[in-house]
Parts: sequence; structure tokens; C-alpha cells
Amino acid sequence: MSRAFNFSAGPAALPEPVLRQVQEELLEWKGERASVMEVSHRGQAFIDCAAEAERDLRELMGVPADYAVLFMQGGATTLSALLPMNLASPERTADYVLTGHWGEKALENAKPLLRTNVAASSRESSYRSIPARDQWRLTPGAAYVHYTSNETIHGVEFPGVPDVGDVPLVADFSSNLLSRPVDVSRFGVIYGGAQKNLGPSGLVIVIVRKDLLGKHGRDLPPIFEMQNQARNDSMFNTPATFSWYVVGLVLKWLKAQGGAAAMAVQNRNKAELLYGAIDGSGGYYRNDVDPSCRSWMNVPFVLPDAALDKPFLKEAEATGLLGLKGHRALGGMRASIYNAMPVAGVQALTTFMADFAKRNG
Amino acid sequence: MSRAFNFSAGPAALPEPVLRQVQEELLEWKGERASVMEVSHRGQAFIDCAAEAERDLRELMGVPADYAVLFMQGGATTLSALLPMNLASPERTADYVLTGHWGEKALENAKPLLRTNVAASSRESSYRSIPARDQWRLTPGAAYVHYTSNETIHGVEFPGVPDVGDVPLVADFSSNLLSRPVDVSRFGVIYGGAQKNLGPSGLVIVIVRKDLLGKHGRDLPPIFEMQNQARNDSMFNTPATFSWYVVGLVLKWLKAQGGAAAMAVQNRNKAELLYGAIDGSGGYYRNDVDPSCRSWMNVPFVLPDAALDKPFLKEAEATGLLGLKGHRALGGMRASIYNAMPVAGVQALTTFMADFAKRNG
Repeated sequence: MSRAFNFSAGPAALPEPVLRQVQEELLEWKGERASVMEVSHRGQAFIDCAAEAERDLRELMGVPADYAVLFMQGGATTLSALLPMNLASPERTADYVLTGHWGEKALENAKPLLRTNVAASSRESSYRSIPARDQWRLTPGAAYVHYTSNETIHGVEFPGVPDVGDVPLVADFSSNLLSRPVDVSRFGVIYGGAQKNLGPSGLVIVIVRKDLLGKHGRDLPPIFEMQNQARNDSMFNTPATFSWYVVGLVLKWLKAQGGAAAMAVQNRNKAELLYGAIDGSGGYYRNDVDPSCRSWMNVPFVLPDAALDKPFLKEAEATGLLGLKGHRALGGMRASIYNAMPVAGVQALTTFMADFAKRNG
Repeated sequence: MSRAFNFSAGPAALPEPVLRQVQEELLEWKGERASVMEVSHRGQAFIDCAAEAERDLRELMGVPADYAVLFMQGGATTLSALLPMNLASPERTADYVLTGHWGEKALENAKPLLRTNVAASSRESSYRSIPARDQWRLTPGAAYVHYTSNETIHGVEFPGVPDVGDVPLVADFSSNLLSRPVDVSRFGVIYGGAQKNLGPSGLVIVIVRKDLLGKHGRDLPPIFEMQNQARNDSMFNTPATFSWYVVGLVLKWLKAQGGAAAMAVQNRNKAELLYGAIDGSGGYYRNDVDPSCRSWMNVPFVLPDAALDKPFLKEAEATGLLGLKGHRALGGMRASIYNAMPVAGVQALTTFMADFAKRNG
């Protein structure tokens, strides 16, 4: 047995050196004579570990000092409900830009909490594009504008940061956090589940401009008040310590790789390789996303006949290529090629795809 | 270096055989050619793993078929806000019985969500006892009665299940889940964070009578609607897969130990040993909790002089006894002796305590 190339959408592949370190120190961590899973979050060893992860994330993303960085329990879906509560009163309006499944979900979680307006949506074109910025119907004085930086299922990614003027921009970065440089100062909030580019599931990273918190005027349960997490270094309650520790190791690995800029080069190369194989297959494989917003992280594609899906997946698995089954909403295939996926993995995939097409053309 | 006896209150000691198995299969899990952290929660391997953990928990606790068992992200504090939303409309009244810090916190999280009534509280006696049942001022027709089965900080544990008639009993079992047998059918909801008796932090177990869900009449964000988790086997969103897997291993370990009944015998023995050492110290060590409700799980105690705390902790650590510092709210010491703490650990502690008292008497 040996490790395969894992194209799962999330939970997803982690860097092997990180897993090896976790394995090595699993029973005795940093001279603590206990596992990192077993030590108190109030003990100095864990406090140091947590603070170091935050420092590394701030450095890697260039987070300005007036932003809080939170490591919270849950995932992006949890945050898609917590954020509306924390950013605005129920009477205010928030704008949502929909470019896929997760934007829709975020909107559903916001609807009971404040007024929402769909400022733009590419739903009618089956989420294969991003609505042109000059078509967005933004609400003057909106509480915030929400969008999904990368749609994991539909494979649609914003190539840059949209300009919405002075209204705080709130973005779900779950599936492209730290996959390329981003100017954090353009945002009110960046949030994302850890389980794609950063670590195990069950932890969500929130980067929030501090002045946006605590002004909602709601009577919230203290555990839902994000200000409480910001004031307590994300330890208002017991955090997901093990996941936080793993994220810390992944951040160290990212720094050693050269950070977001180096990742961007590699991610672009991997994406070009894979889209090239699809587009160059003479129509055998197909990805219908507008090339200007094709995701570098998640590449959905279909075969000429859905009857070929099963043999494709079976042979891929036998070749050591895992997790290629597409989301049930779209069918077909999806290759998630996050930071931890090496170029060699994408090369192995494209080689297999060419061979499969030849044998089943 | 070697592993020590870890008396942390949570995150807390895990069974060493569980940690060894996690370590062994960390890079390649169950023939998946990937870590359990990396595989999709929608893949068959994880679905099987998750279902097996639920089956084992049901078996170990004797959960009746009309109860859902949920493995949710977050901790007990999260649930102390989610439960009021899910169990009742804002106009209804819920009764809270306070026997320590966590009961107070649960009440604070409920207050913005419905009407609350403190039916009983031992706050005035510094939470050293449980108010006599015939003194509780329960609200007729209350939505539910909430209590904390074991108060981790104050070391106060309900020796049995209070009778509240037909009103659903909702109990925070975070720190004594599966530490002794309990009749689940007496409850509307049992919930508890995993990080004491069951696994890593960031996961909360909820055992809820199914007919109580979905009747709150509120317009909730779908992610806060617990009915959605019950209907989707706790996979309405991406669950904390690694934590769920570790809990599954702990449950297997518990079954091998003889389950809750066997744990109860051992936990009672450990508690008697430790309280015996305190009470038999001629007043050197002191625990002021009413003996009828002293916790089997968390044993707070003080030394004759707070100036002795530092040397006590330092020498204890040198002897291989970790995590004994009491909660900052009470000071002094606290020994948490959950299921995973072997009798030998408590023996080592009492031996050290006697020796320390002799040398510093």
C-alpha cells in the first residue's frame, strides 16, 4: 500500500511532510509528555502554538493590524449565518452575488437574519460565468456585499477582487485561501473552512476588520458574538485545538514553499496543464466554464457519455488517482488541485486522461 | 521523554491505545491510500466509520430508537445557544437549574432566545451543593428543564437523574458522558463536548428525542436548524471528520473496557481514592463540596496556603503529574480523572500528595 494522489474537494489532500510530523509527535508533543490533542488550550504550550499559527497566517496573507484573525469552530456554512448576525441589524440590507452553489447557501443562511438582495447571479447560465461588474445592482448603503471567491462545485473563481466602493466586501474563500496573493485591505471579511487548503475539517478561519464587529445592535447569545472571540484570541470557548495545530503546520509548510506568490505560480501551472488536457482532447473531455473565470482549484469536467464515468473512476483509482467523482449536483468529474497537490499529481491525471480517451474514444 | 499522567480538565487525556492507532494509520487509513483527515466525508469509507461510531455510542449508552444521535461541530457552549432556538418558540419559558459555572453560561446563552427562569441555584453557597429537588420552582408547562450533570470547574455532579415529570429534561453531560450508565429515556436532550471523555475538542455529541425537533416555529438559518443535521446523519455540512474518527476509536476502547458499567466501577474507585486522600490529610488538603454530590470526574482541592500552589504544581510536573492547576475562578488545584485516567495515575497523585504534605506540613 502507498499514498495516492487525492483529488477530493474537501476534506482534501494535506502536505505529506505535515502528516509525517503529526504522526511523529502524536503521542508526545513538544516535550509536553502528552499529545497535542490532550493538552489544555489554556496551557502555555498550546497558547504559543496558536499564536504562532496566527502570526504565520498574518505574514503569509499580509493581514493589516486593524484586522482580527479568528480560528473558530465550525465551517464556512456556520459563518454564513454568524456573519449576518454580527455585521448588521435585521433592518439593514446585504447584497449577495451568486456564482454557484455556495453563494446560494450563504444567501439562504442570511435570509432569516436581515434583508437580502441578489445583486447579481449567473444562475440562469448554470453558473458558468461571473456576471459583469457593471451589471451588478448593488444597494446604496448596503451593510455588506457577499460573494464566493471560488465556487468549489461549479469551478468558477474570481480572477481578482471586485470593486464595491466603500461597502464592506465579505468573501467566502474556503476553497482558495492562500492559493494566490490577495490584498486583504480590500475586504471587510475573508472567511473559509480549513479543509481545502489548510487542514482538517471543523475549523474556520475568519479575517475581519475589527471596526465591523459589535455594531449589530442585536441581543445575541454570547457564544454567537464574534467580538467575544476577537477579544479572547478565539478562546472564548474551547477551540478545536488539534485542527488549529495542524493548520499551523500547514502554514509553516506554505512559508517554506515560498508563500502565496509561489503557490500562485504552481497553481496556475497545474490549472493550465489540466485545462489544456481538457481543451486539447478534441472534445472528449469538456469544461464549460467561461475561460476568464475558470477555477485554479476545482476543475469539473465531463466525459462524452455518462456511461463512461464508472470505468473512468474505477481505472483512475486503480492508477492511484482518488476523489475524482464530481459533485452530485453536476455529475461528471471534478479534480480539486489545492496547494498540497503536487504538479506530478496533475501530470499523472492528464496522462491517465489521454490514455483513457484513446482507449475509449 | 515519556508520557505523563495528564489531569487536564479538557482537552484531556485520551486512551494511549487509541493514540497509537491514530499514529499508526495517520498517513494511510483503512486501505484508502490517504489520511482519514484527507478523505471525503461523502466517501463510503468515512460514511461507514461515522455510522459505526454512532452505532457504538447507541449501544454503549442504550439510546432508544426514537432518539437521534448527532456529531456536530462546536462544543457544549455552541449547543447551549442552538438548543433554545431548536426546542421552543421565543415566547415559551425554559427552566434552568444552576449548580456551577457552566449552568450559568448555558443560561446566558439562552436568555436572548426565550424566556428563562432560574428554578434553583446553589450559587449563594458557592456551588458546593445541589439544591434539594423539592425546593426547585419549576414553571408549569415549561419548554424544558436544563441542568449540568457534572460541573467541571466546581466539581459538583448529580448522583442521579432528577425527576421533572413530563417536561423534557435537557442536560449538559460534557464532562461525564459515558462515565457511568445513564437512562437516556429519562431525557429530552443529552449533549456534551467530546474533549473530556471522548476525543479531541471541536466536536459535540447530541442525543435528542426526535419529536422535540422542528417545532420551534422560528425562521432559522438552515445551518442552525438541528432537524437538518438529524435528517442528514450530521452531514448537512462538512462534519469534523478527524474528531469523529477519534471518538469512534475511543468508543471501541470503551466497549473493550466493559462499557459504562465497568467505567462506573473504576471511576468510583478512583474518586474514592482521591477524596479519601484529601479527607484523610488531616485538613491539609480540602474539598468543600457536599459529599453527596462530589464529582467522580473533576476533583478540586486547596492546599493550606495558596503560596504552596506553585511548588506543588512544579513538583507534581517533575513527578509526571500534569494539568493539576485549578480553574482561575476557584484557584487551588483540580484533578480531572476521566475514563482515560488509569487507577495508577490517581495512585501516583495520592502518593505525591501525601509526600508533599509531609514535607510541607
